[in-house]
Amino acid sequence: MSDIFHAGISGARGRMGRAVSQVLDAREDVVVAARFDRGETVDLKLCDVIIDFSTPEASVALAKACAEAGGPALVIGSTGLAPEQEAEIEAAAEKIAIVMSGNFSLGVNILIGLVEHAALRLDARDWDIEVLETHHRRKVDAPSGTALMLGEAAANGRGRELAELQSAPYDGITGPREPGKIGFASLRAGGVIGEHTVMFASEDEMLTLSHSAIDRSLFAKGAVAAAAWVRNRRPGLYDMQDVLGFRQA
Amino acid sequence: MSDIFHAGISGARGRMGRAVSQVLDAREDVVVAARFDRGETVDLKLCDVIIDFSTPEASVALAKACAEAGGPALVIGSTGLAPEQEAEIEAAAEKIAIVMSGNFSLGVNILIGLVEHAALRLDARDWDIEVLETHHRRKVDAPSGTALMLGEAAANGRGRELAELQSAPYDGITGPREPGKIGFASLRAGGVIGEHTVMFASEDEMLTLSHSAIDRSLFAKGAVAAAAWVRNRRPGLYDMQDVLGFRQA
Amino acid sequence: MSDIFHAGISGARGRMGRAVSQVLDAREDVVVAARFDRGETVDLKLCDVIIDFSTPEASVALAKACAEAGGPALVIGSTGLAPEQEAEIEAAAEKIAIVMSGNFSLGVNILIGLVEHAALRLDARDWDIEVLETHHRRKVDAPSGTALMLGEAAANGRGRELAELQSAPYDGITGPREPGKIGFASLRAGGVIGEHTVMFASEDEMLTLSHSAIDRSLFAKGAVAAAAWVRNRRPGLYDMQDVLGFRQA
Amino acid sequence: MSDIFHAGISGARGRMGRAVSQVLDAREDVVVAARFDRGETVDLKLCDVIIDFSTPEASVALAKACAEAGGPALVIGSTGLAPEQEAEIEAAAEKIAIVMSGNFSLGVNILIGLVEHAALRLDARDWDIEVLETHHRRKVDAPSGTALMLGEAAANGRGRELAELQSAPYDGITGPREPGKIGFASLRAGGVIGEHTVMFASEDEMLTLSHSAIDRSLFAKGAVAAAAWVRNRRPGLYDMQDVLGFRQA
Repeated sequence: MSDIFHAGISGARGRMGRAVSQVLDAREDVVVAARFDRGETVDLKLCDVIIDFSTPEASVALAKACAEAGGPALVIGSTGLAPEQEAEIEAAAEKIAIVMSGNFSLGVNILIGLVEHAALRLDARDWDIEVLETHHRRKVDAPSGTALMLGEAAANGRGRELAELQSAPYDGITGPREPGKIGFASLRAGGVIGEHTVMFASEDEMLTLSHSAIDRSLFAKGAVAAAAWVRNRRPGLYDMQDVLGFRQA
Repeated sequence: MSDIFHAGISGARGRMGRAVSQVLDAREDVVVAARFDRGETVDLKLCDVIIDFSTPEASVALAKACAEAGGPALVIGSTGLAPEQEAEIEAAAEKIAIVMSGNFSLGVNILIGLVEHAALRLDARDWDIEVLETHHRRKVDAPSGTALMLGEAAANGRGRELAELQSAPYDGITGPREPGKIGFASLRAGGVIGEHTVMFASEDEMLTLSHSAIDRSLFAKGAVAAAAWVRNRRPGLYDMQDVLGFRQA
Repeated sequence: MSDIFHAGISGARGRMGRAVSQVLDAREDVVVAARFDRGETVDLKLCDVIIDFSTPEASVALAKACAEAGGPALVIGSTGLAPEQEAEIEAAAEKIAIVMSGNFSLGVNILIGLVEHAALRLDARDWDIEVLETHHRRKVDAPSGTALMLGEAAANGRGRELAELQSAPYDGITGPREPGKIGFASLRAGGVIGEHTVMFASEDEMLTLSHSAIDRSLFAKGAVAAAAWVRNRRPGLYDMQDVLGFRQA
Repeated sequence: MSDIFHAGISGARGRMGRAVSQVLDAREDVVVAARFDRGETVDLKLCDVIIDFSTPEASVALAKACAEAGGPALVIGSTGLAPEQEAEIEAAAEKIAIVMSGNFSLGVNILIGLVEHAALRLDARDWDIEVLETHHRRKVDAPSGTALMLGEAAANGRGRELAELQSAPYDGITGPREPGKIGFASLRAGGVIGEHTVMFASEDEMLTLSHSAIDRSLFAKGAVAAAAWVRNRRPGLYDMQDVLGFRQA
């Protein structure tokens, strides 16, 4: 059953691009048909699916080009897209299948479900929610995309939007904590691959849900799993909850 | 609507008994009608419900006496009951309403649900489960009843019984970890009120779900909430999942 | 040997003032001679020592009054003093003995020493330092005074001042972490009494030194121990390292 | 200054042997002169130093052979040696220079110093000490060698031997914790590289000192650093405290 597929790597010289390359090279059912970076052109017809860890601008340009050409499918892991850039990805997803996620790990995507479930059951008047993330010293933005995904899950559990609830980092004279808000804090230290914690605390007790990456290949493996899943899908914008089968059709 | 009820405290001079007493004294809707300990007799008619943190033997004797007298309802927080003692509680629950739980906190009971959910989704061939608990230096048994409840939730998520999966503490030459087993470890230190952690780990990532008690009154408050809930119930054996409305009728 | 002493409580109606009152009431060697708050006058002669958890302004006013009167000694636990307010405390300490500290616990003061020791040995080019603190929802300032003390200990270990090294909370597009800087993050959640963590991380490993308060009386007990120590001292500005005997005379 | 040296690898096909090989291959100042395993012979003259992660038996045999031949120097990372096997290593160290350690990381060796320092200052009547370690599912013994080193550091801080203080894992009906004892607990989960925590807890507060490995190459790098250090030393038995310069000559 020759279910071999052809994959392209966008952002191929970046940290994640190289990790994806290693994972693809180790699989027998994939041919890496193209490796490219910002400003380089690629023949889209060579690929069944492209895995893209680049920049918001490069991702938008790639999505548009693929939509115009009627393929290939995309897995987008770039973070920090502005709302108008996200809208352009959505528009492209009317023509091609795209998986976009801030985090491709199984554990994080389980955690998102657990956080929503706990937030649904823990009364916002009694329970405060805080999100903490720690990453290596090379990370250039904060909070991480995954921390924001977790904050959104918590807000959803409470029937709200994160934008209404997110509070700025506590710094200086803050006054007492505002009930119902969701706080975020970031640490940057050494080679920490990625750690995320969502804390729920009342006056008397604390529930702490955490994820920690052990091996750097974790996210690349998940992105490749997403690529294998998305290459034969109908047009649409998917996320890892879809890939992992956590969302009903 | 004068919904005042009369509560008794069994094991009244113990640590938990005294904490329950404080919580009851602070509520305006409760009259403490009886406080008693092992070997003391009590007029069961004085109470709508008795909260019992005593010993397995005393709890069984109390449950039998209440069942014979046709009341009052019971909240049993004693731990360490042998299977035959549990059977006697079950027999009594054919005549009276009994809430029995190893842990009366909202957070722990949420955690139990999260652990079962995660265990259901994380393949036992890839993901190891470990349960860690830390308690104060006065605790006399290990692992804690709550740790065992968490282990049961994990086993249930995998469609198994904990008895099949529980492994002994790692000590000495153990050989490699046996896939599918659930490990337990206990720490005893100072005044730690109670901390429980369930760890799910694959080769590449780790999911950690924890609960920590901040204030000693936590468990007493939960037991009193259970008492308020159970005093008007039909005979049956309930747990905190019922009290909190987490289980469908 | 009737070594009974007379203590005053400044900020008596505040959370810490009430906790100090409870600890003093439980000791047989102390008479509480005065309890007062902002705007109330007190006869300083009644007290051998005053324990003050109030506001920067109130602490400065009290220190001046005590210095002018030639006593009593002071234990100051107010936090958030401006440099010029600290200078006024120092001036008062030329006339009377004052212990001033951001944290009166034994464990935190041990931790300060450990952090300085580790920072001395871990090369700033390889090892990043981050300080994380978590407190209850009522805390009105961030980072906590204790977090700043820990940051100062880390800076001292590297032969620097914290003011040179402290970085703002990571938020938005930050760029890569600047080598040698010390980061701070704060969480505010429920009834958490107080948790502090100092993380040292290189590319390959992480050292984490933490303190966690179990019982709210911790800090009050430490302040009372400081009061018992300082009441017979010569004028001077002391801290808990002096009280605990960690600093050579 | 051509300071190139010739290294041998004993236990070359094991997990650590392969990691050491990778680290050596990446250094320009080392020639790998021999790779061998149990039962294979090696020409000792080819090497300035041999790095050995094998078994207690193989390490003892290698040490004897090197001592008889008058070299090369040794770095021994095998764990689980019996007292009489340790005595044989000590005897060999009268003829050649040997670094033996249960853990070659800088962070762990700093942690050992911090633990001893804290144990010295925290009164055993008030403060309980617990050691927790987590490792991957392939580890075959518990507690880890490093956990025992940390326990020894704690015991030393209290002027005692670990053998007097070590308690068995808490399991079943244990009775209250015995004051002054040092407890150990082990977790085995997924791919966790290695985590160690020493907890000091009183009734009111907790001090937690932890180390966590981020990258598997950590220990191999430390062993190679030890090899570079030991190859020109005088005969003697050294440890990482010597290599890192933490111990006065």
